[in-house]
Amino acid sequence: MIYFDNSATTKPFDEVVQSFTTVATQYFGNPSSLHGLGAEAEKLMTKAREQIAQLLHVQPKEIIFTSGGTESNNLALKGTALALKSRGKHIITSSVEHASVKQACLQLEELGFEITYLPVDCTGKVNIEELQKAIRPETILVSLIHVQNEVGTIQPIQAVGEILKDYPKIHFHVDHIQGIGKVPLSLNKSHVDLCSFSAHKFNGLKGTGFLYVKEGTILWPLLSGGSQEGTLRSGTENVSGFVSMAKALRMTLEKKEMVLPKIEEMKQFLQKELQKFEHVVINTPEDSAPHILNIAFEGIKGEVLVHALEEHGVYVSTTSACSSKKKAHSDTLEAMGVPEQIAKGALRISLSWHNTMEECRVFLKALESCVNMLNKTMRRST
Amino acid sequence: MIYFDNSATTKPFDEVVQSFTTVATQYFGNPSSLHGLGAEAEKLMTKAREQIAQLLHVQPKEIIFTSGGTESNNLALKGTALALKSRGKHIITSSVEHASVKQACLQLEELGFEITYLPVDCTGKVNIEELQKAIRPETILVSLIHVQNEVGTIQPIQAVGEILKDYPKIHFHVDHIQGIGKVPLSLNKSHVDLCSFSAHKFNGLKGTGFLYVKEGTILWPLLSGGSQEGTLRSGTENVSGFVSMAKALRMTLEKKEMVLPKIEEMKQFLQKELQKFEHVVINTPEDSAPHILNIAFEGIKGEVLVHALEEHGVYVSTTSACSSKKKAHSDTLEAMGVPEQIAKGALRISLSWHNTMEECRVFLKALESCVNMLNKTMRRST
Repeated sequence: MIYFDNSATTKPFDEVVQSFTTVATQYFGNPSSLHGLGAEAEKLMTKAREQIAQLLHVQPKEIIFTSGGTESNNLALKGTALALKSRGKHIITSSVEHASVKQACLQLEELGFEITYLPVDCTGKVNIEELQKAIRPETILVSLIHVQNEVGTIQPIQAVGEILKDYPKIHFHVDHIQGIGKVPLSLNKSHVDLCSFSAHKFNGLKGTGFLYVKEGTILWPLLSGGSQEGTLRSGTENVSGFVSMAKALRMTLEKKEMVLPKIEEMKQFLQKELQKFEHVVINTPEDSAPHILNIAFEGIKGEVLVHALEEHGVYVSTTSACSSKKKAHSDTLEAMGVPEQIAKGALRISLSWHNTMEECRVFLKALESCVNMLNKTMRRST
Repeated sequence: MIYFDNSATTKPFDEVVQSFTTVATQYFGNPSSLHGLGAEAEKLMTKAREQIAQLLHVQPKEIIFTSGGTESNNLALKGTALALKSRGKHIITSSVEHASVKQACLQLEELGFEITYLPVDCTGKVNIEELQKAIRPETILVSLIHVQNEVGTIQPIQAVGEILKDYPKIHFHVDHIQGIGKVPLSLNKSHVDLCSFSAHKFNGLKGTGFLYVKEGTILWPLLSGGSQEGTLRSGTENVSGFVSMAKALRMTLEKKEMVLPKIEEMKQFLQKELQKFEHVVINTPEDSAPHILNIAFEGIKGEVLVHALEEHGVYVSTTSACSSKKKAHSDTLEAMGVPEQIAKGALRISLSWHNTMEECRVFLKALESCVNMLNKTMRRST
């Protein structure tokens, strides 16, 4: 099996699963309980929070555990909107966001908020000047994806942060879900107020994630109740999940220096070799994230290619997993001005530290065989 | 160790943890992915959903997986309120709800909704006639806890359902989190539209739960994005968590017939023996859930007793875990008319199938010793 769909989800580290099992079995107390079984569960969670905070150079109390990236993004957007609605009802985002930001924005429009969807250039980047022009007195939030999940474009987060630091009343939210461990981002230097993370994208477990909430940032809790997570996210904590997430993050960031050049090398190799194919289009721009490569073959539907490659034991995707079953082409590619017939053919290859150059070579052969076969079939059918 | 705090959280079944580990390790695909790894993860989840639906005699598509009880309650309340706000802004609930319902109501009040908090009698029960009188044309939701988490009172859910079936536009939400596996509830016969469950209360894992959403019930999703869970709850699914939850529910319901008489017997024994203690008050009413017993000793603070009992290896609580660190006495007991000096002394004993009569006897001795010791200390200090 060649698994090139690591942006959809990653295989959890064995150590992460082990850590989950140990905590779930041996430390099952409710962290809110007054007695010792509660206290020891809470202690483990405090340690996990401290570890994550240290890795990101922020304060432990700024780490709010959630059930994943979608919850983190929804909490950042709806939490800001409903907390600051009396101050203003205008939000700025881009036209290449993940579905969880896009859909949250649509829901907020229903509630009377106005959203500016910044256009992007052909590389998928927003324009800083346009962003600055979009800011109004009633703007309460700017939300941007750091590493675009379908094509790997890196948004100029630090430059946006430089602008927004002059607007202390605007919350700056960054969706760093695809970026963590792949493309550096300093939360402090970029003046980020809210930042979303999802453990299963960095070899942690599904159902766990967190939102960085800069001290003093006001949110309307989506899940209220027992006042856990500094009242911002109630519910009995998934202690074993959060402890294992801290381990996954530590392991990911420790491996980073060693594995990123290898991932980048694989991507460069694939890109170079793919350019030799006939009728290929590379949708991923230069200077993008090291692990994502989005391509298309004119006249071949991405979905057909995904299934054909699977016959060779190769797993890739057409777009983000969260959007893959919905429609024929991607909003992101459309926003980048990619023609519809190319967008329909999009194929996303997303790499991880455990992939190898040998796998890349096997993949290229499989792809060649699939493309040839599909070209022939189609020529026959037309 | 004698663990009598099973309403705070339960120890997961070994089989549940094993099932989690197997799925997390061997079936790590994203269920939304188009390829086979996604499909096999989705298949497991479909099976889990079917199993839960079958156990509850409802349809698989009516089971919406969530991160736990707090999310389920918040989705039911805020999801209804924001979906039906143009139809009406009035909600009916009781004054003895869990913090996650209470706090969600307070947040909805901020957003302009009006909440009727039904009073309860000295047993903690709402009055059916009062509930009926509280219904207005603009009422959109009635939300009631089935088994009260602090004292074990059982609300007359079926009788309420009988009334509400004449008001098809009102959503009827039941918080069944403490009830499942302990006190029977027919979702169909009680005309329930929304019903909350949390896996860690039935020997499943923290971070998993579900909301029963009767076909045709409209909700405003709190977590939107990739349209998972029939668009009502987006986010990459915690496949291993949900599969393990189905196992926990099946095991719980299979054990039920065998273990409930044993739990009831322990509770009756404890209650009978406790009545022999001096200055004891039993806060739990007759005809309550088999696993919860709430008592108090005049003049001894519950918190002090929790810590004293812990010295004897006995784990109990003062109130719900979600409220235990917040204030000296319980809103629930206050609503039941329990005087403040008694409410301050409340101690919740919550039993599970793995507790034994021998543990009950050891507990009673430990309690006697603690109460005597604390009485002496206090007499000396006054």
